[in-house]
Order: sequence, then structure tokens, then C-alpha cells
Amino acid sequence: MKPRTLARLTALALSTLALGAMAQHEKDVTKTELNYQAGSSPLAEVPMYQSSNPKAPKMTQAEFDRARQIYFERCAGCHGVLRKGATGKPLTPDVTLPKGTDYLKVFIAYGSPAGMPNWQTSGDFDEATVDLMARYVQQDPPTPPEWSLADAKNTWKVIVPPEARPKKKMNRYNLENIFSTTLRDTGEVALIDGDTKEIINIVKTGYAVHISRMSASGRYLFVIGRDAKINMIDLWMEKPDNVAEIRVGLEARSVETSKFKGYQDKLAIAGSYWPPQFTIMNGDTLEPLKIVSTRGMVVGTQEYHPEPRVASILASHYKPEFIVNVKETGKTLMVDYSNLEAIKMTEIGSAPFLHDGGLDASKRYFMVAANNSNKIAAIDTKDGKLAGLTEVGKIPHPGRGANFTHPQYGPVWATGHLGDESISLIGTDPKKHGQYAFKEVAKLTGPGGGALFVKTHPKSSHLWSDAPLNPDPKISQAVVVFDIQNLDKGYQTLPIAEWAGLPNDGGAKRVTQPEYNKAGDEVWFAVWSAKDKQSALVVVDDKTLKLKKVIKDPRLITPTGHFNVYNTQHDVY
Amino acid sequence: MKPRTLARLTALALSTLALGAMAQHEKDVTKTELNYQAGSSPLAEVPMYQSSNPKAPKMTQAEFDRARQIYFERCAGCHGVLRKGATGKPLTPDVTLPKGTDYLKVFIAYGSPAGMPNWQTSGDFDEATVDLMARYVQQDPPTPPEWSLADAKNTWKVIVPPEARPKKKMNRYNLENIFSTTLRDTGEVALIDGDTKEIINIVKTGYAVHISRMSASGRYLFVIGRDAKINMIDLWMEKPDNVAEIRVGLEARSVETSKFKGYQDKLAIAGSYWPPQFTIMNGDTLEPLKIVSTRGMVVGTQEYHPEPRVASILASHYKPEFIVNVKETGKTLMVDYSNLEAIKMTEIGSAPFLHDGGLDASKRYFMVAANNSNKIAAIDTKDGKLAGLTEVGKIPHPGRGANFTHPQYGPVWATGHLGDESISLIGTDPKKHGQYAFKEVAKLTGPGGGALFVKTHPKSSHLWSDAPLNPDPKISQAVVVFDIQNLDKGYQTLPIAEWAGLPNDGGAKRVTQPEYNKAGDEVWFAVWSAKDKQSALVVVDDKTLKLKKVIKDPRLITPTGHFNVYNTQHDVY
Repeated sequence: MKPRTLARLTALALSTLALGAMAQHEKDVTKTELNYQAGSSPLAEVPMYQSSNPKAPKMTQAEFDRARQIYFERCAGCHGVLRKGATGKPLTPDVTLPKGTDYLKVFIAYGSPAGMPNWQTSGDFDEATVDLMARYVQQDPPTPPEWSLADAKNTWKVIVPPEARPKKKMNRYNLENIFSTTLRDTGEVALIDGDTKEIINIVKTGYAVHISRMSASGRYLFVIGRDAKINMIDLWMEKPDNVAEIRVGLEARSVETSKFKGYQDKLAIAGSYWPPQFTIMNGDTLEPLKIVSTRGMVVGTQEYHPEPRVASILASHYKPEFIVNVKETGKTLMVDYSNLEAIKMTEIGSAPFLHDGGLDASKRYFMVAANNSNKIAAIDTKDGKLAGLTEVGKIPHPGRGANFTHPQYGPVWATGHLGDESISLIGTDPKKHGQYAFKEVAKLTGPGGGALFVKTHPKSSHLWSDAPLNPDPKISQAVVVFDIQNLDKGYQTLPIAEWAGLPNDGGAKRVTQPEYNKAGDEVWFAVWSAKDKQSALVVVDDKTLKLKKVIKDPRLITPTGHFNVYNTQHDVY
Repeated sequence: MKPRTLARLTALALSTLALGAMAQHEKDVTKTELNYQAGSSPLAEVPMYQSSNPKAPKMTQAEFDRARQIYFERCAGCHGVLRKGATGKPLTPDVTLPKGTDYLKVFIAYGSPAGMPNWQTSGDFDEATVDLMARYVQQDPPTPPEWSLADAKNTWKVIVPPEARPKKKMNRYNLENIFSTTLRDTGEVALIDGDTKEIINIVKTGYAVHISRMSASGRYLFVIGRDAKINMIDLWMEKPDNVAEIRVGLEARSVETSKFKGYQDKLAIAGSYWPPQFTIMNGDTLEPLKIVSTRGMVVGTQEYHPEPRVASILASHYKPEFIVNVKETGKTLMVDYSNLEAIKMTEIGSAPFLHDGGLDASKRYFMVAANNSNKIAAIDTKDGKLAGLTEVGKIPHPGRGANFTHPQYGPVWATGHLGDESISLIGTDPKKHGQYAFKEVAKLTGPGGGALFVKTHPKSSHLWSDAPLNPDPKISQAVVVFDIQNLDKGYQTLPIAEWAGLPNDGGAKRVTQPEYNKAGDEVWFAVWSAKDKQSALVVVDDKTLKLKKVIKDPRLITPTGHFNVYNTQHDVY
């Protein structure tokens, strides 16, 4: 792939991933503008005051509102709600006004080698929309409203109160092998029995559920939509379903539960993109208890940032702490939840822009991608400090990463990349392999840029990588698998989308998110097609690398990923 | 005093105190508008973009700029830089636009019983200025610039580097009995030999130095101006003088140094009003090391506040922590400075709007005034939690308060009030006087509203209160003193301004800030007159309550307060 193509692809991928517009890329502009799914970005729905900058090109209120909506759907993911820049460049009037409408139009229409998508030549925007957006980004950025405790409480519903819930498991499911599968464009998750591969229930949730997380006991499943709606599902019910819900802001990505001894199932936490803050809730009811703003100083320059988004959260196994990763400031907050009346936080700076990550095999070190800095930071969750910071490939995107023992380097943690084809291996054993600890010790050649998730399992000798955002359908519709004992032999490619046997209906059929079952002997993949096309899940035998099962069901609309209960509960990856 | 008069007085006092316009109250409007001292509010000097709200009354850029300057000088102290409200009501366009110009003009001109000063009838503003301000507060509030590490570094000067400083004390002064006296309107402090009452040096500093603090060793004196300029003075020099300086923002009130064992003289910290943040610096050089934003959620409602100002800071004796009090959010931050790379903070909510306070006699409990909530919070600095919260009088203003053993209630800490004449006594001994701990156990009747400082000393049996902001000159020009063993006998009044023997030149001659010498046998007062009038310091014998000495010197211009080295170093009050 040419660097320019890769860069554009990466930006496009980030933008579409962040903004949830992927399924609409093939549609014409008018439909794209008019047919946003309800709730796809609450930010776009909120009326905001138009602060008319007298130096900026004229816009009618209607034009401003339309541009604002498009901005929040298409641009805010990379450039930020307040346009301070993140993966994309800053677009505040001090930057855009001197450039002027004509220059900006060219940039928007044709993109740039640095990563700006070519919105007009790609067919996403027509010329009028390009003109509209060029004028819009010269206006003062409108600031969306805040989200207070009262706002959160107004959206909070306990559907089944704790006292009305089952006292014991009321179903025959093997709870630990249930999969929670995001049905992106319908605002649902499918709960699937990992043993029988039958759908247990389709549960109404927020839009485009970003992740599923388990309570420490394994009873409660928490999911969070991009629209910042959290649903809490009780797996003990005869038919597992929602027991509580809440909105924690206007846009969000992360939810987690307390896992330290003595605090199991006590608390939940969710991180918001807007407003930039996190909310700690009662683990039984989702009652919001404590909101903490993440606005503050960027690591290194110590400049104030008005929009430091909470990218990912994990619970510590070493302390009563949540590990909260703040994107724009490049800071990991160790949030001690043992006394919410005197909440204690340790702020560990590494590099912007922190995204996602996971624990190493010992569960002591949290490995987190600073994606636009092309670095992985290792946070020592026991001693509460930065253990290391290592350069990796272009825009690392680990998901939670993959842990295995490398024949030469000992325990390593792996990440793929959005911006290049490499898979970086990082040593995670300072005691016995000190010379490799928290350094990139090797690079594998993966399938190509646009990789989202790598995966393995302690009982497996395979390392998997998807590449659903690669522009080559041969790559995005397949996955690759390495033999951990023979990494230098390279990968095998498995044509997962082909194995799904879906009709040739023109759907994009991206294959994504390898996820093991509890036993570690089979791997699940989502074959993600458009909303009006057929999708499927494909299960592969991890020993033989042969197709084991295709799960097809008309209710499985736009599956984009899935989380196995046991592996999520115990941070097995 | 009538309640309405008191309320107005209080608001006026707060406003003038906060804004530094007191000395100009008697001047005519034109002079007031034109003759702001350079640097009196850097906020007023910063050009800010005028975001013209189309719904707001028209203003020219020149009018906007003039109104902005007046706002930052006169209004921001109570209403906040962003006009979200604090001691004063919110003045954001959602509030002001529906009221309209005519209504706002009446309010500004005549004031309100709730505390708004009567700017026109008091003679401070003419009708045109009232009209200007009524239109201004309907515009969007302009946001002043941020202050990053680079901004701080740009203002940082090491005048005498550590290696060029004396290796031992090079003068004959009894350093522990030096007084640092703020010369408000000249931007200086006077260092005065407490033994001889001679001026040692007049040191150039920021404007209207708010406090002086000592390094743990007693060698370095730190002062901070309202203009956020810090000066570091080396008392070991033959003639003590500045060795380093820095600006930590555009407006500030608090500076402190690390006092925990092992960290003596290592670090300094300063809290800013704008931007709302604090800065930790090298204790040798003032090199800025770490900036932490205080923007966040208000205690209780958990609503986001964009402007939580750092009101006061004290060093803990129990832990390597700074106790940082944030006004608008009502939160005390225990900032662990032992590892700035992984800074740890415990956030203890009590009530808005936190202002100033001091330690109890055991130095374990930090007593802080939530002034607009009429409460005193007690923070347990050992266990890092709220120990108590008690209702007191109207707008408590303790300074650092006064500790003594009450014949009935045991150890108590006292505060006076801006808004009423009471002096509240609060129990501080949970071990032996548990039933009184952190509760208001008694109210003394003090001289009247407008009190700023109470004071006593472990070796004294007297409790002093000033009332420099009381409208009655008999009260504002005197102080009162209680016999701690006979509190029910009420106070004696000492006519300090009269004792100063200054010419009857029409100066306001407010008497303020009782401060003990190191031995605890004499008390110093500032007799504060206007910049062009003569001022003085008056020293009273604490045993006999007789005049001991009047310090007059043409260089003592607008002295407003003073800090004794030993008592400040060891938190004796």
C-alpha cells in the first residue's frame, strides 16, 4: 500500500470508527445528511447557540445547524468537539480563518497525505456540502452542554430493582461461555450461548455498543453505546435482560466494574467523550454517585486542554482502583474507589493520545496505546507509576492486546496497527526478562494496515489479527493466524467472510474481532455487513484452523464485535 | 447596622478586596477608569476577542474593551471571570438578556439588599458607565487565555542562582522575628526587623501581595501578588532580597512551601484564580515543574464549573501534601508532592465557596471557611477526610484563624465574619472534647461586620479582631481585644489609628491584620491609608495593651498586612 493511501485510509478508518458513519459511506450525500440513525450522535441533535464570528463567512442558522450535525457525525472524532485537534489537526478559527474558504474547500474535497480523507472525490460529500463545511469550520466552535449528576439521574432507570431480581441463577446456560455481540446499527446486543451457538436474547441498548464488560462475579453484563447509554444485564434471569440503564453524557466509549477483593460487583464506572469526564455508579443499580472531570493539562507541554476524552477504562486487580485512560492529555488516572467521599487519584503521564489497551499476563502491568504518538505505555498498577514507554508502529490499536510467551523474549504483549501492517511485540516480564521489559522486542508482518484487534488465549498457540479497515477486500474479509512457536514462518490467511457463505449482495463484509470461547479452543469472528445486508458470526476451531460453525440469524444485523463472559471477566487475552 | 447595609457592605468589601480598587473609591469615575495601576489586574490588560452576541445590545469594540477592563477590576471578584457567579449572582447572557438593559441599569446603579453594591449612588460609576456595564454583561463573556508551562517559564527568572547564594547567614538579623509587610499599591514588601523595628529592605514584588509564606527552614520568604507574580527572597543575604521570580497566571492569591520531613525547602506551590489551576515549583529556584487544573465538579450538585479558583494553600505537617482549597467547587485537594511524575490527589468535598483557613493547635485539622455557605469545614490532614462541617456566621473570614484553649470547651479555633459582628469558636479536640469537636460551640460579639482577621498566640491570653471593612470609621480604625479567660466580659477597644498619630489628611486609615512577634508578647497592626497619604504600623504590648511603638516611614505606602517569619514558618496562630 502506498503511504498516502495508508494515511488516508487510517484517517478515514478512525473517522468512521469514531463517528459511526461507516455503514453509510456508500449512500448518496442527501441520504447521509437526512438519515442519521436516531441517537447516532446525540451531540448532533443538541441545539447549540450559534456564536457568529463577524470575521467568518456568513451562514444562515439552518446552514450552521446542518454543518454542525455533519461535523459531529464525520469530523469530531478526529478533530475534537471543540476542534482543538487530536488525530486530526486543530480547526479553530485562529487556524481556519487565515486559510479561507477556498483553501479549506480543496482540503476537504481532496484530502491530504497527512491523513485527511478526500470527502468530495470519495463521493461522501457533494460540492455544496464541501462549501458548507469550509464555511462552518471558520465559525467559533459551539460548545455542547455539560452533563451533571442531575442530568445523569434524569436518564437513570432501574428496570428491575435488586430485591426483585433472582436470588440464584434461573436458567440452564453456561454463563461463563456466553458471548455478548454488538449489533451496531440496531442499538442492541445479542447474547449468544457459546456452547450451543443459539441466540439467548436480543437486548435493546444504546447505539453502536462500543464494549461489553462483566461484573467481577460474572453475573452482570454492562454495555455502553456511543450515545453514552449504559445497559446493565442480569445473566441470572430466566431470559437475561436489562435491569438498569443510564446516560452518562452525550458521547462515550468505556464502561468497567470494580474487581478488587471486597469490591466485587460494588461499583461501575463509565468514561465519556463529551463532556470529558467519568462517572462512578452503584454496581447494582447504576445509580450515579460521583462525576470527575478530566479537563486538565497535556503531559509534557502542560498546556490546558478543554476536551480530554476518556478513551478506555480497566479495573485493577492489585488495588481498589480503576485505570482511566485520558486521550488528549496522555494521562492514565489510577482512581481509588475505596472512599468516594475522599476520592484519591494518581495521575501518570505517558504520551497523547491514549486510546485502548489491556493487562499483561501477570495482570500487574497495563499496556496502553498512545495512538497518535505511535507509542505503548506500560503502567505499573501495583506501584502506581509509569514502568515504560516504547515506540511501536503507526497508530497502534491493540483492543486489549494479546499475551503469550515468546520462545526468545519470554512473556510479551502484542498490538496491531491502524497505520501500518506491523504487529509489535513488547516484553512484559521485568523480573526474568529485564532486558526486554516494556520495549518493542520484535515486529511481525501482519496482513496490512487497518488492523483493529489481535488475540490469543493462554491455552492456544495461535496469534490472530484482523484488518477490517484495510481497503483491500481480500484483506478486510479475511484474518491471519500465526503459530506462536514459529513466528518467523509468517501467517496463514483464513478467508472468514467466504466461509460465512453469505449471498454476494454487495455488502462490505468486514471481518473483525477474534474472540476466544472460555475453553480457549475456538475463535469467533464477526462478519460485519451493512444494515440492510446479511451478516454472520464465524466460529473457527483453534487447533485445526478449520471452520466449526457459521451463526446466521436475521436478527444478527451489523455485528461488529463480541465479548466472551469468562475471558472478559478475568481479563484473559 | 441594618441588614441591608451590612449585606451591601459585605459585597462591596469582597468586591474591593478581591479587585483591588479600594484605594480608588473616593476618586471620581474618570480617574477610576483611567488610572488603574499597571498590573493591578492583568486580566484587564489582555486583549480578548469580542464574541458579539447578535441578541445583545450593540457595543463598539472600544466600549467592549473599556467595559471588560472595568468588569475585571470591579466585578470579576464576586461574579467570576466567566460570570458563572460566586459571592455574586451569575451574569451569563441566559440570565442577563431576558432582564434587559433598563433592569440591569437599576441593579447596577442602586445595588440590592442581597449584596450588590450601589455603584452609581455611591459615586463610583457615572450614568454612562452604568449603561456601559449593563450592555456589557449581556454579551458573551470573553474567556481569558490559558497559562501553560511555557508561559510560566517565559516569566521565570533566577536572579541569584543557588550556587551564587550565601552558604550561611550573612547578616545580624534575628531572622525568626522579621516581619514581611505588604505594601499594596506600590507592588512591594517591606522587610522589617521585629526586634529593632527598622526597615531592612523594601523589595519589589507583584502588585498587592496577598500573602507571605516561609520555607520550612525559615531561610526563604515567598510572596505572591494578585497579578500572580511570585517573588522568592533569601533572608541569608547581607541585605535580604529577591533571588527568583515567576508568574503563574493572570491572577492569583496563594503560595506555600513543602514542610513535611525530608521535603523541607524542596518545593513551592502557588494557586491561581485565572487560569483555575495550581503550579508546583522547585523550592530553590521557582522553576515550574507541574501544573494541575482545578476545573471540575461542584460538591453536592456535581455540576461542572469552568472557573474553580484556588483560594488558599497550606502545607501539611502530617504527610508530604499540600492542602489546596478550591473556591467554587467547594473541594479541598490533598496534593501528595512526593512523586510529581505520578502525582496523587485526594479530593475532599465540603461546601462552596472555600476561601481561607488555618490549622488547629495540634496541626492535624485544617479549618477552612466556605464563605458564601456560612460554614467552616474541618479537614483531617492525617486521615485525608472531612472531619466536620459546621454552620457559623455570615461570610466567615478567618485568615488563618486563632487557636486557644477555651475554659469550658477546650481547644477551639476562632473565625470572624465579613457579614456580621460575630466571632465563632469551633471545638478542635475530638479526643478529649469529642462532644464539641468541629462544632460551633460559642459566638462572641465582635466589633462589627467587615472583620478580616482574628489572632492570638500560644503565649498570650488575648484574642484580637480587626474590622477594617466596617463602614463606621470608629470601628474600622480600631481593633478589639478579648481576655480569653473572661470572654463573657466582652471586648476592649483600642483606637489603633489614633495611636498612630497620623495627620488628619482625609485618608481612610483602616486598621488591619493583628500579627504577633515571635515571642508572642507584642502585636503588630497595619494602619492602611491611601497611596498618596501617610500610613504606619502600630505595635502594641500584649500584656499591658499599651502602645509600644509606631513605625512611620515614607516608604511604608499602603501597608495592608504582615507576616512574622517564625509564626508563619511554624503555623503559630
